[in-house]
Amino acid sequence: MVVGLNENQLIESIARRAARDIPDSGLILGIGDDAAIIRTAAGYDLVTCTDTLVSGVHFPENTSAYDIGWKSLAVNLSDLAAMGANPRYTQLALTLPHARSDWLEAFLDGWYALAQQFKVRLIGGDTTRGPLSITVQAMGEVPADQALLRTGAQAGDLVVVSGELGGAALALECLQAGKQVAADLLQRLKRPQPRLDLGVALIGIATSAIDLSDGLNLDLERLLGQQGARIELDKLPLPAALKKIPEAWRWPLAISGGDDYELLFTIPVVAQVQLQTLAVELSLPLTVIGTVLPEPGLKLFAAGAAYQPTSSGYLHFEN
Amino acid sequence: MVVGLNENQLIESIARRAARDIPDSGLILGIGDDAAIIRTAAGYDLVTCTDTLVSGVHFPENTSAYDIGWKSLAVNLSDLAAMGANPRYTQLALTLPHARSDWLEAFLDGWYALAQQFKVRLIGGDTTRGPLSITVQAMGEVPADQALLRTGAQAGDLVVVSGELGGAALALECLQAGKQVAADLLQRLKRPQPRLDLGVALIGIATSAIDLSDGLNLDLERLLGQQGARIELDKLPLPAALKKIPEAWRWPLAISGGDDYELLFTIPVVAQVQLQTLAVELSLPLTVIGTVLPEPGLKLFAAGAAYQPTSSGYLHFEN
Repeated sequence: MVVGLNENQLIESIARRAARDIPDSGLILGIGDDAAIIRTAAGYDLVTCTDTLVSGVHFPENTSAYDIGWKSLAVNLSDLAAMGANPRYTQLALTLPHARSDWLEAFLDGWYALAQQFKVRLIGGDTTRGPLSITVQAMGEVPADQALLRTGAQAGDLVVVSGELGGAALALECLQAGKQVAADLLQRLKRPQPRLDLGVALIGIATSAIDLSDGLNLDLERLLGQQGARIELDKLPLPAALKKIPEAWRWPLAISGGDDYELLFTIPVVAQVQLQTLAVELSLPLTVIGTVLPEPGLKLFAAGAAYQPTSSGYLHFEN
Repeated sequence: MVVGLNENQLIESIARRAARDIPDSGLILGIGDDAAIIRTAAGYDLVTCTDTLVSGVHFPENTSAYDIGWKSLAVNLSDLAAMGANPRYTQLALTLPHARSDWLEAFLDGWYALAQQFKVRLIGGDTTRGPLSITVQAMGEVPADQALLRTGAQAGDLVVVSGELGGAALALECLQAGKQVAADLLQRLKRPQPRLDLGVALIGIATSAIDLSDGLNLDLERLLGQQGARIELDKLPLPAALKKIPEAWRWPLAISGGDDYELLFTIPVVAQVQLQTLAVELSLPLTVIGTVLPEPGLKLFAAGAAYQPTSSGYLHFEN
């Protein structure tokens, strides 16, 4: 039965789901008071991030509540993964035009499908009426001084990417063009997998890390700052569907397509063996795609020749 | 000069303001990476909350950027105050239809006017394009196991409120009716003062606490849960403007008017002397307005007679 919920019922519905989590010694107080209370362990740093998803901007307006629930949590956990943090707690600020019980339950189904996979607890939040948008705040722990930062890459380090690139962007383009999209490709767009196990495992191996939300080109520039990189496009790990399309369409998607939520990181050359071991342990492709250069700028090469990208990735507020 | 900002410029403008803060030994990494890193002190619990403000719902659409900046921080700090927490860090998720430099600078002026008053640092966030809405997440510290909770009031405890009630609601009603509003009354609506010094001072004195965001009636029910209270309306501390209007208009505003962001709390009868000392020390009225009863329900009395409220406070999603 679909029920219109008032604010108290909305909060209670969320709190009931959260109450099913197994107890957590660090969580002193969860949903229901003015704020939540956390006791952090000595020797650990708390890592915290926040991300907003707006309907029509970060997901098409007809996206299912389940997929919105999954993705709004996933993009935040992906930021924690890029820090090497072990995810612990989240807060959910939900702005809804209407509070319907069926929408909320489906949203929470999607959220908890991912939350339970990583034992992440929902400890607080806010519910308001307005245009559909979701802001999630996530907290994780990392051993003191061990977090993976964007700074730290050295010239000569190898540039590595997890999983495959461009699948989410290809799925989105196909959807927008009204074309059929294969289920596995659609999954990359709608239910990205935050690379949390990889992030934790990269502590002590990676010299820098970022998650790929806005496209390889843009996120690589953010990662390298005053340094640069030479990237071999032929080495980019691509989904089969992307390999089949013409290069003029393929490279822009692989280079500038956002929403992959893979990790992009650098390692010293000597860590290559560790990298291969890790890829096997995690059953996750970890592909060396280039080398860090001492001067700023990205040098892209395809089949041995320099390649000039036409688009630089997804920036909000650009026209 | 008004400049249209792209996403990087928007983040840089915010980061420049944040960089002016004096260094903080607990903040390992602030704005600029995938997440922020905090090292919390042993013996303290971290208190965390989040609140969203939507244009047209939580503030009129013509509200100045300065006032939006102030209030979006204030309502979150008010939640920390209600926990007895010392505020430390915030994250700002800003959703804007357009990114204009003049709007952003005025927003940050309002934000930092309040942030610097309480030495609260902005350590991260997100910027997205969409209908104007602001989600703030705030973190504070409280000595382990000492936070002020909503649970804890005992039958016979005194019900106390800080400051004055109903001023923000009166200002809003006047604004909506197109009437002139006195500056001091408008200030209560637009620039609420989170009662942080009071919250910290109430540790060891108050048996329970909540901040008044949705009106005395509703927030008192939330505070007391399965208990109740007898409230003497004649004791309610009201601004002069509210005392002048007819009772039929006055009591609903005082009882159900939201947005005051005062603290509502309970103390044992024996703590009355401490309460008076505290009021003097903080130069803040702390008024006993009633008594906790063992059974649920609010019993309101005016001039010795029972009073029946007509509205129960502001609930989102109610029709």
